[in-house]
Amino acid sequence: MHEFEFIQFIQKAQANFPVESKYVDFGVGDDCAVLNIPDSHQLLVSTDTLVDQVHFDEKLSAHAIGHKSLAVNLSDIAAMGGEPIAVTLNLTLPDINQNWINEFLAGFLSLAQNSHVVLIGGDTTKGPLSITVTAHGLVEKGQALKRSAAEIGDKVYVSGPLGEAAYCLNHPLANGDALHYPRPEILLGKALNGLANAVIDLSDGLASDLNHILKASNKGAVLFAEKLPLGEQLSSCSDKSDVLNYVLSGGDDYKLCFTVPVSKESKCQALMSRFPEIVCVGYITAEKEFVLEKSNGERQAITSTGYNHFI
Amino acid sequence: MHEFEFIQFIQKAQANFPVESKYVDFGVGDDCAVLNIPDSHQLLVSTDTLVDQVHFDEKLSAHAIGHKSLAVNLSDIAAMGGEPIAVTLNLTLPDINQNWINEFLAGFLSLAQNSHVVLIGGDTTKGPLSITVTAHGLVEKGQALKRSAAEIGDKVYVSGPLGEAAYCLNHPLANGDALHYPRPEILLGKALNGLANAVIDLSDGLASDLNHILKASNKGAVLFAEKLPLGEQLSSCSDKSDVLNYVLSGGDDYKLCFTVPVSKESKCQALMSRFPEIVCVGYITAEKEFVLEKSNGERQAITSTGYNHFI
Repeated sequence: MHEFEFIQFIQKAQANFPVESKYVDFGVGDDCAVLNIPDSHQLLVSTDTLVDQVHFDEKLSAHAIGHKSLAVNLSDIAAMGGEPIAVTLNLTLPDINQNWINEFLAGFLSLAQNSHVVLIGGDTTKGPLSITVTAHGLVEKGQALKRSAAEIGDKVYVSGPLGEAAYCLNHPLANGDALHYPRPEILLGKALNGLANAVIDLSDGLASDLNHILKASNKGAVLFAEKLPLGEQLSSCSDKSDVLNYVLSGGDDYKLCFTVPVSKESKCQALMSRFPEIVCVGYITAEKEFVLEKSNGERQAITSTGYNHFI
Repeated sequence: MHEFEFIQFIQKAQANFPVESKYVDFGVGDDCAVLNIPDSHQLLVSTDTLVDQVHFDEKLSAHAIGHKSLAVNLSDIAAMGGEPIAVTLNLTLPDINQNWINEFLAGFLSLAQNSHVVLIGGDTTKGPLSITVTAHGLVEKGQALKRSAAEIGDKVYVSGPLGEAAYCLNHPLANGDALHYPRPEILLGKALNGLANAVIDLSDGLASDLNHILKASNKGAVLFAEKLPLGEQLSSCSDKSDVLNYVLSGGDDYKLCFTVPVSKESKCQALMSRFPEIVCVGYITAEKEFVLEKSNGERQAITSTGYNHFI
């Protein structure tokens, strides 16, 4: 297939997953796409590259690769409290396997459709398999939820079970949905507007990602070891040290981690009835230490790569 | 270098090429960048991937690769009449060679600085060398210059010498600036607002790119063979058939091709005094044919891949 035929091929696939959008004036087919940005809003931009043998391997279905390459970007929009509106897709392929591309696009475009996101452009190139997605979202002016806004006394929440993705990665026979089909928390991200102080999505693991909030906010945190929520598969894992590693350092969970001031406790309770998987896992401190606390009072230091030594 | 160190490395390089921008509320360092889009404007988005061995090879300097990876995207913004404001950079590298990266960033960031464009985010990954840039620009609402707006009788212009890039590609000892350091025609693109009907940038060659305008506008065109502007190196080329191939099908010129209604002739003359390399090379016709006309009246059909048979 010539590049122009490939673009037509993608446009035909798009027709099977139509998305109505007042934000897209013009999508694929000119030098640029043209987007309408409503007054009193700001634009959010996020981009990620997935590379063969680094982020996935040939055993993974093209459908899952398509889903995940979009999901990880929408997760970043969610982590700023934004509404995703449009994405570009840069696809580098060693050869044109129409079945593979069809499956990839089905995974990509079905998530796009479910998220009301339009594929507005991109590029197709021959080369080693690699996928770059750039996502665009909207947020009301000044309302983007940043990493740097955590305050002393804020409670720290996560939006669901952690460590399942890393568990799947190490247990090929386990159910891999948590790893291959992460669901970006767009509705939750929007609901955190006016409630959360700092927000981040959990791509590298709670230790690393909450550490970003702490560094950006110049604060510390205490995490409650027994409160960290485990998924079903991880709960059945017998080695508790392994479990803690998966939860703190596994990454790829794409849940949100956010901090909420105590003054908004009741509003947060209302949110938790809408999103029942949300769990309070700790609190923000003035001391610039990041520690894991067990119910017996024992404490361990957490570093950006996990937990290591007793203190 | 760990990924976070790499990001810090890029941020340090950015400090050497500062760009003041009222459009960037927040750049590198959170889940998303946050851009201000002024009221009554629309957002333009364009993206390109450059792959090692396809778009360049290891002999090309990292500085030139950095320049060109940004230039080709800014050229797309220019071709819509937009003002580029911000870009993301996704860099996939087989290994961390600090000299290479420094050179690459110097090429990339110096063009960004000259174009008042801010690097707002991106991604760094280990893998086969590949670069994806996504550019964002502004245009007044409804003013984007599209391919589909050519009208019968419009004169067809190009903004400078054609074929030099392709000549360089085939003559390694020639001066390679046209190939390696294309200059995106941002000022010209903005000046075409209210003047040009259809605009495209010349990435694949005049035959292919003007054909996009003709298809999108449902028109034909006549090109004047002897009016096609040649650069200095191409002018000295003895084989006239080679020259025509370079000019029509060579690609990589990144000049603009645009159509102007006869009613705006005098305004166009004023523009040509500001941009003296602009040349009228033909006109738009109702007949959906794309032909090359010699001064002796002889005509050849032009296809999207070049010219081929006499008619």
